Amino acid sequence: MNEIYFDNSATTALSPAAREAMRDAADLFGNPSSLHFAGLRSAALLKKAREDVAASLGVPEGGELIFTASGTEANALAIFGTAYAKSRRSSDVILTTDSEHPSVARNLDRLEKDGFRVVRVPTRGGTLDMDTVRKYLNERLFGVYMMAVNNETGAIYPLREVFAAAHAAAPLCVCHADGVQAFLKIGETPASLGADLMSVSAHKIHGPKGVGALFIAPRLVRAKSIVPFYDGGGQEKGFRSGTENVIGIAGFAAAAREGNARFEASKAHLEALSARLIAELTARGLRVNLPPRRAPHIVNFTLPRIKSQTMLNFLSARGIAVSSGSACSSHKSAPSAALLAFGLSESEADTSLRVSFCAENTDDEVTAFLDALDAGLSTLIRIKR
Amino acid sequence: MNEIYFDNSATTALSPAAREAMRDAADLFGNPSSLHFAGLRSAALLKKAREDVAASLGVPEGGELIFTASGTEANALAIFGTAYAKSRRSSDVILTTDSEHPSVARNLDRLEKDGFRVVRVPTRGGTLDMDTVRKYLNERLFGVYMMAVNNETGAIYPLREVFAAAHAAAPLCVCHADGVQAFLKIGETPASLGADLMSVSAHKIHGPKGVGALFIAPRLVRAKSIVPFYDGGGQEKGFRSGTENVIGIAGFAAAAREGNARFEASKAHLEALSARLIAELTARGLRVNLPPRRAPHIVNFTLPRIKSQTMLNFLSARGIAVSSGSACSSHKSAPSAALLAFGLSESEADTSLRVSFCAENTDDEVTAFLDALDAGLSTLIRIKR
Repeated sequence: MNEIYFDNSATTALSPAAREAMRDAADLFGNPSSLHFAGLRSAALLKKAREDVAASLGVPEGGELIFTASGTEANALAIFGTAYAKSRRSSDVILTTDSEHPSVARNLDRLEKDGFRVVRVPTRGGTLDMDTVRKYLNERLFGVYMMAVNNETGAIYPLREVFAAAHAAAPLCVCHADGVQAFLKIGETPASLGADLMSVSAHKIHGPKGVGALFIAPRLVRAKSIVPFYDGGGQEKGFRSGTENVIGIAGFAAAAREGNARFEASKAHLEALSARLIAELTARGLRVNLPPRRAPHIVNFTLPRIKSQTMLNFLSARGIAVSSGSACSSHKSAPSAALLAFGLSESEADTSLRVSFCAENTDDEVTAFLDALDAGLSTLIRIKR
Repeated sequence: MNEIYFDNSATTALSPAAREAMRDAADLFGNPSSLHFAGLRSAALLKKAREDVAASLGVPEGGELIFTASGTEANALAIFGTAYAKSRRSSDVILTTDSEHPSVARNLDRLEKDGFRVVRVPTRGGTLDMDTVRKYLNERLFGVYMMAVNNETGAIYPLREVFAAAHAAAPLCVCHADGVQAFLKIGETPASLGADLMSVSAHKIHGPKGVGALFIAPRLVRAKSIVPFYDGGGQEKGFRSGTENVIGIAGFAAAAREGNARFEASKAHLEALSARLIAELTARGLRVNLPPRRAPHIVNFTLPRIKSQTMLNFLSARGIAVSSGSACSSHKSAPSAALLAFGLSESEADTSLRVSFCAENTDDEVTAFLDALDAGLSTLIRIKR
């Protein structure tokens, strides 16, 4: 049985190029902080990898790219690093959305307990409510922490507009883009978004799990508007201590180089796959939870009174991997907060599936998925509403 | 030129077993949190790896082993996780040493700014001052955060005695062992030390960089005496969010299995290598900074008015890697805090070298090192005292 992996927003397969880079990096075992030959070799590899990831992200001159252990840690560094950079604050309002990944949402909950006023802008139907945003565009705005692409619906939020308006109203406010689902999928960069900070993750772009990165704008570095949120040996220019994951970082760089080189072709392919899937699902009378602007790799739809977990298991038994919610939260029983924010009822959220493509997926796989879905739709038990 | 790597306290070469485990793990790309077949496979690998590392660390039943990105992050989780577990504290005294790794020292500095009273117990000559410890053994003791083995001198601190006395005086106090340099070197476990928490790191035992772990005792888990210090998808039982570094963790487990199986033989070999080196250095009239109890893999000694950096470069040019201080801090120009705590003057600390062995090092390598050292001693420029 050929397996079909349609859960690329949860994680992706390691690319051959990333695997090869990791294998090569495994030979260079020095600690990048060591001053002898073995350390210098690892430091050189790390430098090159940083340049490669920075290039794929269009990092502007003078900006920093700080490697972390995950997109989650990059988000935590962005949030706590800026919030705790100054002991006195004249601004305390934070804008975010009501459909963030838990690594943004839960860490902002902490800031809220710590005295910040966190405004969760509605994203009903996948549209960011700009009226709510505008209400808070004044000098009390401390920061904006928002995702560029929603991980469950694929909705693209208009961060460029929000960040521009935020900086216009409060020039010192911090604008952070959680770019984990956007990176090498929709072609936005910190420069194109006007972001001061942007988080990315290796394992969403065919790199290894366990590596993320945070871009920090020159302005924030100069003004010391961001500090580490834990300390140690002072690696990563002091922003993130701990011996660097050299092998993982080498894999990240290879994946980023490759993803960057193939970006336009991949994007067109993903758009074709998802356009066909959306058309086929719609033809079956299924509700596609379609945002007005969406990333090309994610399609979320609601099943007719069949629990998403039931269909997920049915498909998994047939070698097809899809998701019933963010993988990070998929062991939780609560309905997806992102889908509720989109406007789904609890029972609708509980009967929705996410298909997320990568560039290696094929039209034949979509056909096989639809066949299996049809089989499930005709045989699986329906729940009562 | 055969290279000689005598900097195993900074980091170690990846073992063939770890490399093979990582190569195999690279095929299993599912997110361990995903509920389909691909996720379940990764979750199974993660479970097995956790059991293997736990076994090598003698983790007691009901204890948790939480994977982190580094020993540094494990230390930060131990420190912040326990300090912020409760909003009200009746105890506020923290015992540590004056020679901790920066990942303990700098994070405790943060707690000090936050209102804790941090007592840095002297470790002059590599001996923990028990008189100072005893002064603080009362119900105000919040926690003890100490390294089991000093990373620069190899000094073994008597954590078992300190932890027992601390628990006797303040039963609820938290006892954390930074076991990064001790793990699979001196054979102590959380159980043998009576530790509530113990940090370890993969890359010090021939696993990959970018993976650490924190043992958490059943008592702390039950009492909720430790919380995560950043949030997200709730991986690692909620203690440490972020998609797990599956490939790195697989390498860690393989290295731990192997290190555990070879422990006694390695220890005897390391003891023989370091005993010979100490004898040879002493015979040359060099001062060996010898603690009364020491780990078998670390030898620190002071050069006669030759900058450690000068000798390090001389040796490095001859393919021999040693250290002039903790790799984490080796780009800093300040003299080693650990060596000053040992009792060295600033100029002595600045002329000291660390040799740190692994089980793969040989007696012939020690001979070659001594020959190169002799060449350096006779040719390098001496500084004025």
